[in-house]
Amino acid sequence: MIIIMRPDHDEEDLRRIVNRLEDLGLRTHLSRGEHRTIVGAIGDEQVLREMPLESLPGVERVVPILKPYKLVSREFRQEDTVIDVQGQKIGGNQIQMIAGPCAVEGREVVEEIARELVPWGVKFLRGGAFKPRTSPYSFQGFGEKGLKILAAVREQTGMLVVTELMDPRDAVLVCKYADIVQIGTRNMQNFRLLTEVGNIDKPVILKRGMSATIKEFLMSAEYICSEGNQNVILCERGIRTFETETRNTLDISAIPLLKQLTHLPVIVDPSHAVGRADLVPAVARAAIAAGADGLIVEVHVRPEESWSDGPQSLRPPAFGVMMGELRQVAAAVGRTL
Amino acid sequence: MIIIMRPDHDEEDLRRIVNRLEDLGLRTHLSRGEHRTIVGAIGDEQVLREMPLESLPGVERVVPILKPYKLVSREFRQEDTVIDVQGQKIGGNQIQMIAGPCAVEGREVVEEIARELVPWGVKFLRGGAFKPRTSPYSFQGFGEKGLKILAAVREQTGMLVVTELMDPRDAVLVCKYADIVQIGTRNMQNFRLLTEVGNIDKPVILKRGMSATIKEFLMSAEYICSEGNQNVILCERGIRTFETETRNTLDISAIPLLKQLTHLPVIVDPSHAVGRADLVPAVARAAIAAGADGLIVEVHVRPEESWSDGPQSLRPPAFGVMMGELRQVAAAVGRTL
Amino acid sequence: MIIIMRPDHDEEDLRRIVNRLEDLGLRTHLSRGEHRTIVGAIGDEQVLREMPLESLPGVERVVPILKPYKLVSREFRQEDTVIDVQGQKIGGNQIQMIAGPCAVEGREVVEEIARELVPWGVKFLRGGAFKPRTSPYSFQGFGEKGLKILAAVREQTGMLVVTELMDPRDAVLVCKYADIVQIGTRNMQNFRLLTEVGNIDKPVILKRGMSATIKEFLMSAEYICSEGNQNVILCERGIRTFETETRNTLDISAIPLLKQLTHLPVIVDPSHAVGRADLVPAVARAAIAAGADGLIVEVHVRPEESWSDGPQSLRPPAFGVMMGELRQVAAAVGRTL
Amino acid sequence: MIIIMRPDHDEEDLRRIVNRLEDLGLRTHLSRGEHRTIVGAIGDEQVLREMPLESLPGVERVVPILKPYKLVSREFRQEDTVIDVQGQKIGGNQIQMIAGPCAVEGREVVEEIARELVPWGVKFLRGGAFKPRTSPYSFQGFGEKGLKILAAVREQTGMLVVTELMDPRDAVLVCKYADIVQIGTRNMQNFRLLTEVGNIDKPVILKRGMSATIKEFLMSAEYICSEGNQNVILCERGIRTFETETRNTLDISAIPLLKQLTHLPVIVDPSHAVGRADLVPAVARAAIAAGADGLIVEVHVRPEESWSDGPQSLRPPAFGVMMGELRQVAAAVGRTL
Repeated sequence: MIIIMRPDHDEEDLRRIVNRLEDLGLRTHLSRGEHRTIVGAIGDEQVLREMPLESLPGVERVVPILKPYKLVSREFRQEDTVIDVQGQKIGGNQIQMIAGPCAVEGREVVEEIARELVPWGVKFLRGGAFKPRTSPYSFQGFGEKGLKILAAVREQTGMLVVTELMDPRDAVLVCKYADIVQIGTRNMQNFRLLTEVGNIDKPVILKRGMSATIKEFLMSAEYICSEGNQNVILCERGIRTFETETRNTLDISAIPLLKQLTHLPVIVDPSHAVGRADLVPAVARAAIAAGADGLIVEVHVRPEESWSDGPQSLRPPAFGVMMGELRQVAAAVGRTL
Repeated sequence: MIIIMRPDHDEEDLRRIVNRLEDLGLRTHLSRGEHRTIVGAIGDEQVLREMPLESLPGVERVVPILKPYKLVSREFRQEDTVIDVQGQKIGGNQIQMIAGPCAVEGREVVEEIARELVPWGVKFLRGGAFKPRTSPYSFQGFGEKGLKILAAVREQTGMLVVTELMDPRDAVLVCKYADIVQIGTRNMQNFRLLTEVGNIDKPVILKRGMSATIKEFLMSAEYICSEGNQNVILCERGIRTFETETRNTLDISAIPLLKQLTHLPVIVDPSHAVGRADLVPAVARAAIAAGADGLIVEVHVRPEESWSDGPQSLRPPAFGVMMGELRQVAAAVGRTL
Repeated sequence: MIIIMRPDHDEEDLRRIVNRLEDLGLRTHLSRGEHRTIVGAIGDEQVLREMPLESLPGVERVVPILKPYKLVSREFRQEDTVIDVQGQKIGGNQIQMIAGPCAVEGREVVEEIARELVPWGVKFLRGGAFKPRTSPYSFQGFGEKGLKILAAVREQTGMLVVTELMDPRDAVLVCKYADIVQIGTRNMQNFRLLTEVGNIDKPVILKRGMSATIKEFLMSAEYICSEGNQNVILCERGIRTFETETRNTLDISAIPLLKQLTHLPVIVDPSHAVGRADLVPAVARAAIAAGADGLIVEVHVRPEESWSDGPQSLRPPAFGVMMGELRQVAAAVGRTL
Repeated sequence: MIIIMRPDHDEEDLRRIVNRLEDLGLRTHLSRGEHRTIVGAIGDEQVLREMPLESLPGVERVVPILKPYKLVSREFRQEDTVIDVQGQKIGGNQIQMIAGPCAVEGREVVEEIARELVPWGVKFLRGGAFKPRTSPYSFQGFGEKGLKILAAVREQTGMLVVTELMDPRDAVLVCKYADIVQIGTRNMQNFRLLTEVGNIDKPVILKRGMSATIKEFLMSAEYICSEGNQNVILCERGIRTFETETRNTLDISAIPLLKQLTHLPVIVDPSHAVGRADLVPAVARAAIAAGADGLIVEVHVRPEESWSDGPQSLRPPAFGVMMGELRQVAAAVGRTL
């Protein structure tokens, strides 16, 4: 931690800070420049994070030196984390596709969709049984009935189930049916829910909050890991910006940046990022080219009848065309799909 | 709902849409212009909100006509809602101050702070017993012990207690001690928590999500009201923008805008908006001048020792100076404080 | 300047940096912590700003200590700058109103508007003769003919003229007629234009770019001052955010923040900030309460016939009501209007 | 144009609007729904764009039906525009690389850089002779001397010259040396400069403003085309968001979206988008995968000595590795590089 003093500070201000730091077991290091005096605090930065040093008289600014996350950082673990989900690997050379409808709308339709995905080698089926909806008057999901449908389709097709958990009270229930538990963008800083999934034995997809910085995103992953669950998959899904032509703006540079900062796998949700089916394939290709370990894509046999997110769902023929393109791009970057 | 057709649509596309709308019990209205054909759907727009009409062939764009919220809207209720909290009114001519530390850090310090607030006529004491913290390694609040401290200080001073609820599982516990339950910015779209507080008999302060639009903010209030709890107080607390000099950017125009769109009271949190104690008074004055019904402000006797949000906490003397200024501004806009 | 080294740097990296800094006449200061080694550079930070130290091997991050602007800073000049415009002061205790139509649309209409403003004590008339318009097909202003109309109305009413300069080639022409030259939001980083107005002898209103940080805003003011023209008036006019209900989001905290960082006067344009006449008065009151030295407001006798920005123009009766309110708020903060 | 009336409008309001529209030669179309009355205006929407219909009593909202740009739109011209620059095509199957230093810093260094680029088949050399710099104290470019260096290197290597124009007064000078004229992000809405380059006979690279919407970006291109210069190349270079880890956020979906809305070529500047050399290759691959027609990349032989933008400049070896990767990705999407 570096403490930059105001030009008008006095010696008493300085002594107070030095004493405070030394009481905390840190060594200090003074540097008096022409315009500013700087105090360096040497030792465990973590004990300082909680201290509002900016509130002390004479302090202009406090600059942390270290990153605030540990377990999820590359410094902590150099090699890529590869997560094994019932034998399927996420984070390795193989790029994984997670596809399916936004919400579970009924057994037949989910089966119909799954049947279209299996021939393309898709191993993970997505579908929401609990749906976070902006309006209280919108369809909120089938709950356990939806989870049972997903399990039945898994039985039938061998696909693994990815589904969202919205409420800590449903954790046991959702884990009973899910192979991967998803935490949605609106819950990225629902810290109680993060703590809860830190204590389950299922891998977790953590979606980036729509206005979360990369640092906050990694801190939320740290919440889960610090409880004991190291199987966290980060998902970039678009951030909120001033542009309104697309639902969100996919932060494509987040992929190589996260790969540098953390050992965790990084996947991308192009469907929520753009909110329009016609733009999904181009953005999906970009995500693979940038180094994503997987994609989570909304697919529906009849988007015009779907109960949520229809406009961003691909129809199976468009999904097939996209898969062909993605395989080319994956090969170009030395990976398989 | 207005459906704008693509220039290359065909008659079959048009017939499909008209049929779909008429099946839903809506009347339709065709207007063929030089460049575009437009279909107006007349009737209950709500049935259409769930329908992904954009996914139908030939459709360029769908424009809703009505606002998506009902119970919270001025059209639903013309007069201002005034909420009675144990005899204190929020939303009337009297502007209410809610003040106190970020977190409950111990009985003595809360008492000490409260004693500084009472002489200024502050009726509401804020303090978090459950704290949403970006880092899992930060102080997470004292939980029930914190709630008991707040209750004890209420006993002593007569101040009413405002405290945050983060987890639906704590709703009964928090309601046992709180006079007003607060939903934090990170939980504005934690829909399960909204549903939960829609079923309690305490007023709720709903903080705007840091990247929530006004429409989304009102939809979250609608969640609470639609469950039966009409006592919702909206709180503007700054939105996330590109500017980094301040923690967030207070959306000052949200105050008159919300007052126009909804009958609910609107308060402002200048402390979280700016994140720096020195800027709080100016922004607080602005909020009152723009029509806020109250303020929620962080005050601490020793910010440099506080366990969270120290840099944005006012010391009692600065709070006192600010109160003097705010009373002048309140009088200038015809209100009391 | 502080240089934070990567954990994997070697001694050669360190020596290279130290040598580079010492070659530039700076002293260096090493601090080896547990996790990071830090190099402090002591001396004139300006020589380092141009050096891409981040590109040197072994460097993790470079942290500047000083602010990049000088002439405009409070450190450079402690007392408030008060600008005298033909006897009218901007930046003193008196709050100044600048009002008028968006564009000069003809002599009669400008006269008609000015006649409505004079009785309220408004001393400055705004009106664009050169109009920056998003579309090439929109009205681009009357050019010199417009300037002549403004001058004629000044002759008639005694009001001083505020008008925009868009092109360095028009500087002489605009200065011939204007009392204050305005630089629009889209030209805040048109550095050639800034240099141009740095060499004129008229005060300049510099509008904040719609996505400019406070630091960039002040750097643009520094451009003008560094050329010799110290009469710069900063104008906050709303920044671009994700919110779409208002045209922009007024950054209310920019007012006290700028007042702290710079000695220059700060005014506010509530009309462009919100883009809707109905919200202008509340935001104008807030600006005064927060400490603004003046307002620039669009007023039109018949907004529904105006050629640009009609929806955000106040009609004279609404302007009058607002003036009454603003005087109350100005008095409440110890100023006159 | 669709005009949505307020629920409380009266017949007089409605008649006034209908008369106004009919006076303008438009036909009107009334639709009275349960909750709202809607007026459709049929005819040339352009005449209405200038009319502030929202200011008329009784109007709630005005919804335009058509896009505000014409010449640049796909509706105007279906096939892709391919621009011929001295025999090199931009916008065709061949993806073009534009590379070089941020600023022209001297003849030797530009030559040295160019010599590294030629073997990779790079046909376009970038380099600024006029530099828009945030600080007045930063290097502002060599002006004509810089242009002459670029021309000399073209002579020597056959590479074509891409350089920025900042001031309409320099248009003739810059055109004398440049093969493509660049308009920078801060000048995207410098309408006088746009008008100027609309009248030159050189192709123009128009960089997206850092907070410009796609619509505004296309309107600025329309400015140039409407003056007669159809050879406009659009350049996505990152937009300003809340994220601070990268300099800007590349809007990857802008590529397929622009390809859909306009016939103009679309290139990408990954260097300014991310601001860090280490992230440039991944983002460059993504841009090609998403359909970009070219890239503009900063390359420097000694970034640590460059006078501007060092941290985002690739060294030649890293550029070479990237070129190899980009060729694979280009082939994967059916293009050559």
